[in-house]
Amino acid sequence: MNEFELIQSYFDWQLNDSTIATGIGDDAAIFNINKGFQLVTSTDILSEGVHFFKDTSASDIAYKSLAVNLSDIAAMGATAKYFTLALTLPKLDQVWLKDFSESLKLTSEMFKVSLIGGDTSRGPLNISITIMGVIENSKAILRSNAKVGDTIYVSGHIGDAAHCLKKIFGGLEPTKDELISLNRPFPRLNLGEALKEIANSCIDISDGLEQDLSHILKASNVGAEIDVRNLPLSKSLLNYVNNNNDWSVPLCGGDDYELCFTVPKTQEQLLKSISELCEVRITKIGVINNTKKLKIKGYDGPSNSYKHF
Amino acid sequence: MNEFELIQSYFDWQLNDSTIATGIGDDAAIFNINKGFQLVTSTDILSEGVHFFKDTSASDIAYKSLAVNLSDIAAMGATAKYFTLALTLPKLDQVWLKDFSESLKLTSEMFKVSLIGGDTSRGPLNISITIMGVIENSKAILRSNAKVGDTIYVSGHIGDAAHCLKKIFGGLEPTKDELISLNRPFPRLNLGEALKEIANSCIDISDGLEQDLSHILKASNVGAEIDVRNLPLSKSLLNYVNNNNDWSVPLCGGDDYELCFTVPKTQEQLLKSISELCEVRITKIGVINNTKKLKIKGYDGPSNSYKHF
Repeated sequence: MNEFELIQSYFDWQLNDSTIATGIGDDAAIFNINKGFQLVTSTDILSEGVHFFKDTSASDIAYKSLAVNLSDIAAMGATAKYFTLALTLPKLDQVWLKDFSESLKLTSEMFKVSLIGGDTSRGPLNISITIMGVIENSKAILRSNAKVGDTIYVSGHIGDAAHCLKKIFGGLEPTKDELISLNRPFPRLNLGEALKEIANSCIDISDGLEQDLSHILKASNVGAEIDVRNLPLSKSLLNYVNNNNDWSVPLCGGDDYELCFTVPKTQEQLLKSISELCEVRITKIGVINNTKKLKIKGYDGPSNSYKHF
Repeated sequence: MNEFELIQSYFDWQLNDSTIATGIGDDAAIFNINKGFQLVTSTDILSEGVHFFKDTSASDIAYKSLAVNLSDIAAMGATAKYFTLALTLPKLDQVWLKDFSESLKLTSEMFKVSLIGGDTSRGPLNISITIMGVIENSKAILRSNAKVGDTIYVSGHIGDAAHCLKKIFGGLEPTKDELISLNRPFPRLNLGEALKEIANSCIDISDGLEQDLSHILKASNVGAEIDVRNLPLSKSLLNYVNNNNDWSVPLCGGDDYELCFTVPKTQEQLLKSISELCEVRITKIGVINNTKKLKIKGYDGPSNSYKHF
């Protein structure tokens, strides 16, 4: 099987999107952007031994590779549309490829995005996806627009992926739910799209709440106070935190892919409706102020959010 | 130095393109596409030990990573605009990063493309770039539109990169020019843009002329006859071929990134002007016919163009 057969067998799916003029099979893909829309694009790498374990299933790797990219589109308030896949593989393992491609296809259908191109190479397992979305002109939710007085929210609950990792590294068996948190993060696309109407700023929590909220503060030239007692935690993580007084897991643990966003107080009622409509729990965790610093009430531990190096 | 300092130090260049609404620094980049234009996108991986040697300089790797992507945009007849960089590095080596980023910046300025986002990770050296370009609606040169009677051309001369590789694998010292062919392929962006007005089909020769021309034939449902004696070869490669009667190097050797394209006979005069205007040599190598096969006069060796696996 050569590269062309590989692509045809595993990645050249029938696409059902009339904005795609040319998909897989030429030197490049071609698509149309409607008038009044901007293109939104982001790239995320998943590398074996760094972002997933050697024994993580091909299906989980495929899901997560796409999900973490979709999460970036969600954090902009945009609509995900297309992606390209750069897949570096140690060998042409057809069982692995079948699982990977089936899961990637399923995930792409679930979130309504089309694989329009990519490349394959021999080498240590590495998946890099570039995602493209669209948004009405000037509607994107940036990190740089948080305003003093905004309420700070997070979606879902946070820290479970980090808790799962901590258990694995500590030789403990994570629960099934904890493994799902780590391997199957759910990109908050619906919530992001709805938030573009009311949120002043937004980021997805990939490297840890403390670090990611700090990005908003720095880019917006503001400060914030949050309270650890407000953080939305799962029962299992709450137990762990209470028993160990270790807030660093939900504060500094990455891989959650929940949204952290800020909204003017006046929009509280509308936000409640959005949360119900999107069926996503959202939790008030603090307020933006003018101190240019992040104060975390109830936590005086170190800042040890995820570092890429 | 963490990831954010790494990006700020090495990759967050001042961009000078008013179509970019948001560049590096948010969850995603945002840009505008003018009305009447389509977006053209492609992804290429460069992986250590596969696409370059362990001792290839950071500067050459950066140049080539971008150049091979630009070549795909050239083959569509589009104008290159933006790119994202997925950079997987074994360690944070600041000397390497400085060389890599300076060369990437220089290359992006030379070809007028802007780095708008990306990701970094720890792991074995792997560079994946996704390139984005624009083209007027329906103007792209596809592989699938070659017509019976079209003349087949290639730009520049071919086979030098493969010849250089053959020398290195054979323990011989390549010349400086041969190393440049391998490490510094020149994407034919000007030629591609000009060709969109007259070419019926086009591909860039990345995997070898025989294989890449075959892609045009298959996609267009046609055949072709070319003659090895017409192939444009450098003096040094011509010497090698004459001495060894080994036409497989220019026919099946990849990594040239010249354009192979087909043009109706009636456009011969216009093509000559384009070649002069773009200062690119172009050479007639054969004709498209209806046989659905590729006949190579003067060659009866095996088809051994580049296989990715």
